[in-house]
Amino acid sequence: MTSDTPRAVCLLSGGLDSSTCLASAIHDGFECYAISFDYGQKHKLELDAAARVAASLGAKRHLVVKIDLRMFGGSALTDDIAVPKGRSSVEMGRGIPVTYVPARNTIFLSFALAWAEVIKASDIFIGVNAIDYSGYPDCRPEYIEAFEKMASLATKAGVEGETSIRIRAPLIRLSKAEIVTLGTRLGVDFALTHSCYDPDVNGISCGECDSCQLRLKGFVEAGLTDPLPYAK
Amino acid sequence: MTSDTPRAVCLLSGGLDSSTCLASAIHDGFECYAISFDYGQKHKLELDAAARVAASLGAKRHLVVKIDLRMFGGSALTDDIAVPKGRSSVEMGRGIPVTYVPARNTIFLSFALAWAEVIKASDIFIGVNAIDYSGYPDCRPEYIEAFEKMASLATKAGVEGETSIRIRAPLIRLSKAEIVTLGTRLGVDFALTHSCYDPDVNGISCGECDSCQLRLKGFVEAGLTDPLPYAK
Repeated sequence: MTSDTPRAVCLLSGGLDSSTCLASAIHDGFECYAISFDYGQKHKLELDAAARVAASLGAKRHLVVKIDLRMFGGSALTDDIAVPKGRSSVEMGRGIPVTYVPARNTIFLSFALAWAEVIKASDIFIGVNAIDYSGYPDCRPEYIEAFEKMASLATKAGVEGETSIRIRAPLIRLSKAEIVTLGTRLGVDFALTHSCYDPDVNGISCGECDSCQLRLKGFVEAGLTDPLPYAK
Repeated sequence: MTSDTPRAVCLLSGGLDSSTCLASAIHDGFECYAISFDYGQKHKLELDAAARVAASLGAKRHLVVKIDLRMFGGSALTDDIAVPKGRSSVEMGRGIPVTYVPARNTIFLSFALAWAEVIKASDIFIGVNAIDYSGYPDCRPEYIEAFEKMASLATKAGVEGETSIRIRAPLIRLSKAEIVTLGTRLGVDFALTHSCYDPDVNGISCGECDSCQLRLKGFVEAGLTDPLPYAK
């Protein structure tokens, strides 16, 4: 990497989407600064997956930010609320599920923005997807565009006339199958990733939460086999 | 307070502006949920001021969120960089000073947004001011408007057709003297507040940093006396 290599901050949960998103940023020629959040999620072992993926794909740095979203509550991912299992795609298409964490992507992107400004990164990558997803409001293209606009006014660049930071969501219009195909082509080792909201004590994915179901459907439709073991 | 009383989340640093802003929200009839941040600031004693002010004005709750912005660096408020002293108003008008903390208000507002969504608050109050200020990009009206727009798309309300959360900055176009006058009228006890970026070991304000200078000028122009002691 030379000093001219553009830098990007990449949100990395350790799941299928964010791992493919990181691989995409690296493929585009960015020096990547991966950022993960220890936010009180019950499926904290995704952070181990994030570390494995960051190392495997060659991120320049990997930072884990500790924040506690349990103090606000309101989500099955952080609170003592059951993660829904076995929902059909029709049910997933209806409204916002209890696994939604209020303002989570906004908080994550805000921290990414702070880091990007300090290290002079030109881009922030986020692996959101608005096709095969759980209906979270902060995964939609109009949200990403509004965040980018806000970010351009929030930072020094917005005052000093420099190019402001772009928010890139390369997976936003891809199906889960297309993401699996893209990740495979870019060399993501999906055996290192973790997607399940409710793994068992041994870290085995449940196969029944929205996240597992969307992932499994993606592999099937891509004609590939998910290397992860599942409880069901 | 009845169950119909509207709720607001109010950012509260414990300084002159945010204390007046909280008083303003309470005066407007909101049940107020004050939120402060232990973010690695060197002038951490502002958190004691915030607790005193929240109690004195009658906030319903006061939450202190612990995050560590030192891990990103880049500011005299969090790093081993000297806080500038004795700058003239002309110097303050030139560019963004080293006390700027990258993306700080965006991070603070994002947490406020999460809390607001969970407790069903209709409004978020922030005491930013674009007249007598240090030139921070995230204190300008266009920034606040862009955050509100983003927030309306980030949250459930944006999907489910409910009224989205408003970001209110009642001080944004007031001079510091007008803020002092307003705060006094609304019963803020400025002796409880803290504004200095670089207090001494006994917590006495320096009187020379931008924040002290702007505050002192405000009191002089309002024809009032600042109840705080100053080192100089």
